[in-house]
Amino acid sequence: MSDHISGIRSEISWSTSSQITIFGHDLVDDLVGKVGLGDMGFLELTGRLPGPGESAMFNALTVSLVEHGMTPSAIATRLTHYGAPDSLQSAVAAGLLGLGSTFVGSIEGAARYVQEADLGGDLEAEAAKIVEPFVAARKLIPGIGHPIHKPLDPRAERLFTILDENGLSGPQVPLIREVARQAGEALGKELPVNVTGAIGAIASRLGIDWRAARGIGVMARAVGLVGHVLEEITNPTAPTIWREVEEAASSHHSGHA
Amino acid sequence: MSDHISGIRSEISWSTSSQITIFGHDLVDDLVGKVGLGDMGFLELTGRLPGPGESAMFNALTVSLVEHGMTPSAIATRLTHYGAPDSLQSAVAAGLLGLGSTFVGSIEGAARYVQEADLGGDLEAEAAKIVEPFVAARKLIPGIGHPIHKPLDPRAERLFTILDENGLSGPQVPLIREVARQAGEALGKELPVNVTGAIGAIASRLGIDWRAARGIGVMARAVGLVGHVLEEITNPTAPTIWREVEEAASSHHSGHA
Amino acid sequence: MSDHISGIRSEISWSTSSQITIFGHDLVDDLVGKVGLGDMGFLELTGRLPGPGESAMFNALTVSLVEHGMTPSAIATRLTHYGAPDSLQSAVAAGLLGLGSTFVGSIEGAARYVQEADLGGDLEAEAAKIVEPFVAARKLIPGIGHPIHKPLDPRAERLFTILDENGLSGPQVPLIREVARQAGEALGKELPVNVTGAIGAIASRLGIDWRAARGIGVMARAVGLVGHVLEEITNPTAPTIWREVEEAASSHHSGHA
Amino acid sequence: MSDHISGIRSEISWSTSSQITIFGHDLVDDLVGKVGLGDMGFLELTGRLPGPGESAMFNALTVSLVEHGMTPSAIATRLTHYGAPDSLQSAVAAGLLGLGSTFVGSIEGAARYVQEADLGGDLEAEAAKIVEPFVAARKLIPGIGHPIHKPLDPRAERLFTILDENGLSGPQVPLIREVARQAGEALGKELPVNVTGAIGAIASRLGIDWRAARGIGVMARAVGLVGHVLEEITNPTAPTIWREVEEAASSHHSGHA
Repeated sequence: MSDHISGIRSEISWSTSSQITIFGHDLVDDLVGKVGLGDMGFLELTGRLPGPGESAMFNALTVSLVEHGMTPSAIATRLTHYGAPDSLQSAVAAGLLGLGSTFVGSIEGAARYVQEADLGGDLEAEAAKIVEPFVAARKLIPGIGHPIHKPLDPRAERLFTILDENGLSGPQVPLIREVARQAGEALGKELPVNVTGAIGAIASRLGIDWRAARGIGVMARAVGLVGHVLEEITNPTAPTIWREVEEAASSHHSGHA
Repeated sequence: MSDHISGIRSEISWSTSSQITIFGHDLVDDLVGKVGLGDMGFLELTGRLPGPGESAMFNALTVSLVEHGMTPSAIATRLTHYGAPDSLQSAVAAGLLGLGSTFVGSIEGAARYVQEADLGGDLEAEAAKIVEPFVAARKLIPGIGHPIHKPLDPRAERLFTILDENGLSGPQVPLIREVARQAGEALGKELPVNVTGAIGAIASRLGIDWRAARGIGVMARAVGLVGHVLEEITNPTAPTIWREVEEAASSHHSGHA
Repeated sequence: MSDHISGIRSEISWSTSSQITIFGHDLVDDLVGKVGLGDMGFLELTGRLPGPGESAMFNALTVSLVEHGMTPSAIATRLTHYGAPDSLQSAVAAGLLGLGSTFVGSIEGAARYVQEADLGGDLEAEAAKIVEPFVAARKLIPGIGHPIHKPLDPRAERLFTILDENGLSGPQVPLIREVARQAGEALGKELPVNVTGAIGAIASRLGIDWRAARGIGVMARAVGLVGHVLEEITNPTAPTIWREVEEAASSHHSGHA
Repeated sequence: MSDHISGIRSEISWSTSSQITIFGHDLVDDLVGKVGLGDMGFLELTGRLPGPGESAMFNALTVSLVEHGMTPSAIATRLTHYGAPDSLQSAVAAGLLGLGSTFVGSIEGAARYVQEADLGGDLEAEAAKIVEPFVAARKLIPGIGHPIHKPLDPRAERLFTILDENGLSGPQVPLIREVARQAGEALGKELPVNVTGAIGAIASRLGIDWRAARGIGVMARAVGLVGHVLEEITNPTAPTIWREVEEAASSHHSGHA
């Protein structure tokens, strides 16, 4: 036992010379070869291993977020790889840094209002309490609305179906559907629950703290960004992107001919 | 079709208004709810979905790397969260930045020499070609040796067992075992294949390019580091670490009382 | 001229084969050897070179922020260097990621309310408009108050003196002093303008947009964090920090003896 | 005095409730308002304040590196800002992560061979020892050669002039000029000392450890990248870059119309 620093402790993992324990599970005997990477994500976010339905659901959430092609994050990853080809981890980290309020904030925002609602109460009234301040402030409601997919977002609906198929139905999805309905009524247009709203609601059903819900996206995108580094190694795009952007950005200067 | 930038292309993913395709698979119909997060990692690293045995093996590799408790990476993540509590992604990125040559370099190094060997040739001779330059330069061989676990590293052995159980045996593991045997003989001590060597050899068996092998660790640790942010939110350690380190580092200055 | 991408342009810098122009200044003829690094920071933040007094003032702001010893950022930098010793830039980046709302947010917050005030109006009334919502919400006012330095923070006072000595006095400092006075009156205790409040007010005087005011700290700390990497190379602290934190964090587990 | 962690110490900075000391200098009395940001960089890299000539020279080195327009780093910074607009520090950090071997490695490489040479010896023989292994391995020599600027690189020559004007001439510049001459002779073409070679040689003259020479670029670019965030706030380019790159990368897919 250490007598050096007191007052800090972690319940995540501890080791002896013969054993690594993670949230109480022996790494070699209970986890490696027994559970998947997605299950480890669930374990990190909730402190316990998922049941079979929870595992299917959580993996589906992450799978839906792994890859979206040439996003700003993926481009940042590729440009970083170009400058630091020996540091795959730096390229992935650069891409993750763009997972802020613009792209994953709505997962967090949706999970937050779902978790702060009284889910044992009247969902119509709870939804009204959520919708009103956003409408009054003329702000977008996180997780609600889509420019193309309406009245329903097929990715959101797919996730809701998986939730039901795994016997995990709960008040979270009816609540967010009611939020979308009331918002649409207030604004006079069709507003679906979109995929980030679905993930926020389902994460809440799975017991994931909204303050870490953004982490579902971070886990998933880290997986995808590694693929972009690999493709950049074999088939580089960064030199072309650099040249084209630089030329375009300075083409209006007379000195640039 | 764009006529704006020519000469760049990506085969990873493309989208239309109704469909996202990832390495040729429809995201909603073929991936979400059908495969796990680890399978997506395999897909990103090889361009194809794993067979059942490959899926089990690849998930086992990543699971073995997700979590090691209060590593330098985890501490960096926690300290970063303290300064930027609104940016979970920054805290995870800071932790990933430490996954360089010290910790994941040996996966890459082991995968490299396994992939550069002639696996159809005489493994004893191939191993000798690998071992000799390291021994001559008095350098550590990536993936070989462990201060405690000898003659065998139980985590490495567990992974090798999973490989065999899934019918995936190949020349990669015999080669790296022969590398360890010859290195031990040359240096007169017992040298096991350690867990990073095992991962490097098995990744090679799975067809993962050594230049991206470090990415297995990056994917896995991103999952684990999210858990450290969450624990830091609920039970902070950073203020204590800061205070203790600062006091210790400046305690020798007379002006510091 | 490029006909590839249209609609993006940058006024910062453009190049020909013989010349690099930065905000209209020739790099080799007008900047290198003529201005200092701090002046370049002023140029990046305002689009113009500083006058002599502005240069002295802006350099003083940055100098006050370069170095604070073993901060959470500096520790994160050192731990990252330990894992990725070949990537000095990664270690510095990891440290910068902690410069979020906890440490530099108050510069931004103070600069914001100073810049949103009507500086041609009655400063007492303007200060009241700033103070009231914070007091009503029982929130700290950015840039106001210090646990030790009261009634005055010597670093803030030093910066104000430099401003006056350089003939740059303006309504910004009287306004923030009045904010501190009214806040102290409302809360019944002595509240000084602290160093981050001083920087926010002075940055406003220098014409620096509050949305980039955090960048003064980022520029400055990047300089300091390089020094921490260098000291870590010659006299490592990361292995000890790691060992002590890991032992402390897991010392309560019975399996850890 | 702390009795908690022993064995770590830092000589960079320490604080009491009334004083911050940096490399032995009182922050408020001796540094703020007395020295510039560039001088702080010199202090961090050498442990002492520069003399006037050293200050002019070091500032010139950094100024030459602050800004190069729409580099891959600057584009990564801008794309990251788009995703995480509340985290200026993340956007800058993302850009810094690309300052690896491709762009700043040659400063480090040049500084290394200058510092490993016997500067009191015969410079022609020392240069030969440097050049031969590179030529034998058909590798580029760091800091030597330029596609356009030959026989001389005007930025390098400008920096050498500043060195001489400040009375700081030494064997480092003659050595690297001789390296360039011999390399050109061996390869049969005109090879100038380029700007990164000049910086590596001059940094060596100033006593900056080659292992931290990359840090000169990191300090400088951090200053420049803040300017790119600010311009991105006021005149965004990231949405256009994203759209154009995504369209171009997927335009060859038949499903993409």
